[in-house]
Amino acid sequence: MTRIAIDPERLLADLDKLRTFGQCGTGVVRPAYAEAELAARGWLAERMREAGLEVAVDPVGNLFGLPPGDEASILIGSHSDSQPEGGWLDGAYGVIAGLEVARASLESGGPRIAVVSFQDEEGRFTTLTGSSVWAGQLALAEAQALTDDEGITLEKACRQPDGLPAPAEVAPERFSSFLEIHIEQGPVLDTAGERIGVVENIVGIRSERLRFTGEQNHAGTTPMHLRRDAVQGLVRYIAELNARFADIVTPATVWTVGHVAVHPNASSIVPGQVDFTVQWRDAETARLDRMTEIVRDTASEIAASMGLDLERSGYATIAPTHCDPILVERMAEAAEAVAPGTWRRMPSGALHDAANASYRMPMAMLFVPSKRGISHSFEEDTDRGDLVLGVEVLARAAAGL
Amino acid sequence: MTRIAIDPERLLADLDKLRTFGQCGTGVVRPAYAEAELAARGWLAERMREAGLEVAVDPVGNLFGLPPGDEASILIGSHSDSQPEGGWLDGAYGVIAGLEVARASLESGGPRIAVVSFQDEEGRFTTLTGSSVWAGQLALAEAQALTDDEGITLEKACRQPDGLPAPAEVAPERFSSFLEIHIEQGPVLDTAGERIGVVENIVGIRSERLRFTGEQNHAGTTPMHLRRDAVQGLVRYIAELNARFADIVTPATVWTVGHVAVHPNASSIVPGQVDFTVQWRDAETARLDRMTEIVRDTASEIAASMGLDLERSGYATIAPTHCDPILVERMAEAAEAVAPGTWRRMPSGALHDAANASYRMPMAMLFVPSKRGISHSFEEDTDRGDLVLGVEVLARAAAGL
Repeated sequence: MTRIAIDPERLLADLDKLRTFGQCGTGVVRPAYAEAELAARGWLAERMREAGLEVAVDPVGNLFGLPPGDEASILIGSHSDSQPEGGWLDGAYGVIAGLEVARASLESGGPRIAVVSFQDEEGRFTTLTGSSVWAGQLALAEAQALTDDEGITLEKACRQPDGLPAPAEVAPERFSSFLEIHIEQGPVLDTAGERIGVVENIVGIRSERLRFTGEQNHAGTTPMHLRRDAVQGLVRYIAELNARFADIVTPATVWTVGHVAVHPNASSIVPGQVDFTVQWRDAETARLDRMTEIVRDTASEIAASMGLDLERSGYATIAPTHCDPILVERMAEAAEAVAPGTWRRMPSGALHDAANASYRMPMAMLFVPSKRGISHSFEEDTDRGDLVLGVEVLARAAAGL
Repeated sequence: MTRIAIDPERLLADLDKLRTFGQCGTGVVRPAYAEAELAARGWLAERMREAGLEVAVDPVGNLFGLPPGDEASILIGSHSDSQPEGGWLDGAYGVIAGLEVARASLESGGPRIAVVSFQDEEGRFTTLTGSSVWAGQLALAEAQALTDDEGITLEKACRQPDGLPAPAEVAPERFSSFLEIHIEQGPVLDTAGERIGVVENIVGIRSERLRFTGEQNHAGTTPMHLRRDAVQGLVRYIAELNARFADIVTPATVWTVGHVAVHPNASSIVPGQVDFTVQWRDAETARLDRMTEIVRDTASEIAASMGLDLERSGYATIAPTHCDPILVERMAEAAEAVAPGTWRRMPSGALHDAANASYRMPMAMLFVPSKRGISHSFEEDTDRGDLVLGVEVLARAAAGL
């Protein structure tokens, strides 16, 4: 096995450089940041060329750096667009890591490695837009017609800096496997004092909006036993949901009531209506199904017992993704070799482009810790030693494929 | 005992007439409704004169109709201002009832009875403004400086139609007792199929704003055991509060969580903060005190057990008011005579001007049913037979004083 000797200084310098363009992303171009965004993308393409890779752009705007020759290569990447107030590592780390491993492998005579920066992962148009189109999960024409909050279509926003080739298909069949390294965006590794997470699966997500409608009334003149209080319904519902979920979940299962809207929302009025969302995530479809039943049955029972009307809407579902078991073992071996005793196997609670890639090829992922679990914030950060360590694990795993 | 023979037709016609001015009230004058409000107030003063009463206005704008002579009289009244989208009976019923009983008593040679329409009961400036000043609970200058939502002072808004006397003190010492009849504004009588409520006390009100602050986090990547979820704190708190209150309340005690604001209130984010109000009402100060302890102790315990920070603010308290026991018995005797078996003794869950009057003289109140408990709504209504019956009970009780 040829060792792929990455250059830590180069990796960190590239990450720092990308940051200087202003966290505004390198994909779809917003009018207000057009200059910075085109410059960032142009710089990234130039770094791919300097690494000995051939730059390609596909019709939805995914940016590839391909090794010379035609044989199938390993693809490593992530996204380099960002949330409006996002941090410097969410996505960008995986792209720069892929660039450095591809460069170092070419230099070391290791396996053929390509890099990709997927378009619009963060959802200006829809979540994981670029990898969805590339993997055949979303039709190109459909994606191009999507609009952002300002009504701009993806087609219009998808511009390239001077010097890039004309967009052309980059078929998934060119690649033998997909690897992604990403910050955890959660507190598990940081809390445990561990440095590497070997991802076994990406959890599925279900969510539903619920509405309890009771009767709005005077908070002084309406006796408790004649009330149909929507907030009391919400309280009893969530308490019961917690109790019923407790019987079937694993420590990795999560559920959240993150949005609550009370009407009329005045301290002297018995609340007549509450709208809220329940979202639940787990790696197993059977468990997600069972949770859906519990969400619905419990809502019907509580509503009936409290004289409330129940409406459900907006049921949404994203299937869980399992990483390739062989690749997971390679990642685990590399983690144990490079960071013995300070890594763990874990699920990814967040969605990633890797989930789309897995429709077309074997896929695996690595995590590095997020300080205090913070992401989607300017405070997002990871120890520089951990950033380097993660890419060393990635390079070692790639070298053995 | 001289019978006071009220004229049901006249009572109902006056109520209907007051309604034609547009539910905009007869007190403090809003620029947009100036003509209608001054006309309504002018009409009310004229009806007092036609009933043989002398019209008086005090400095805060309470409108009195006084019987001839100087001896102490019974005062009957309520308010004739209204909520912006309020109904036709809330307040107006008690004023027109007082007018009719005063008129009929004068005609029948019964006791001396005066009528009052208190200024700004509904709280354009502050709740029960007119009766608070009259009863010495609020300084006139302080009241006059109060502003409404548009920044208009009460002093400026307090205008009188042509033909009214100059404002002058109308001392509480002129009156021997205060009686008020009002719609219940709740569902108790209507649900029970009863026609008269003899009020024994007006409940005290306490309220407090609470804030639980946890940690805002990603709803996918933050395991349940590492969350500090403010909405889960709210749920556990209200459930525990319900359980602890259950041990100490009476069927007439009420408590309400009517206002809830979640931050950042997004379905994919573990909520980091929730602000909410708890309001509780009861007729006994000792029970209100015990409930305050429970509200606070439970909040501290739940916050500590869930790793949340707790802030409390805006504690507000309005003391309970007990009706005069002798007057309550007179009201009860009259109710049993006029509406045998279809009345009950009950607390008032809403505040009324009568609470202020009780600081200066013996006070009692009557309720008539509100259809489906609805008030502060255009749908507010009471059966006309019940409106007449209520005033018959009132007149009979007054005749015996």
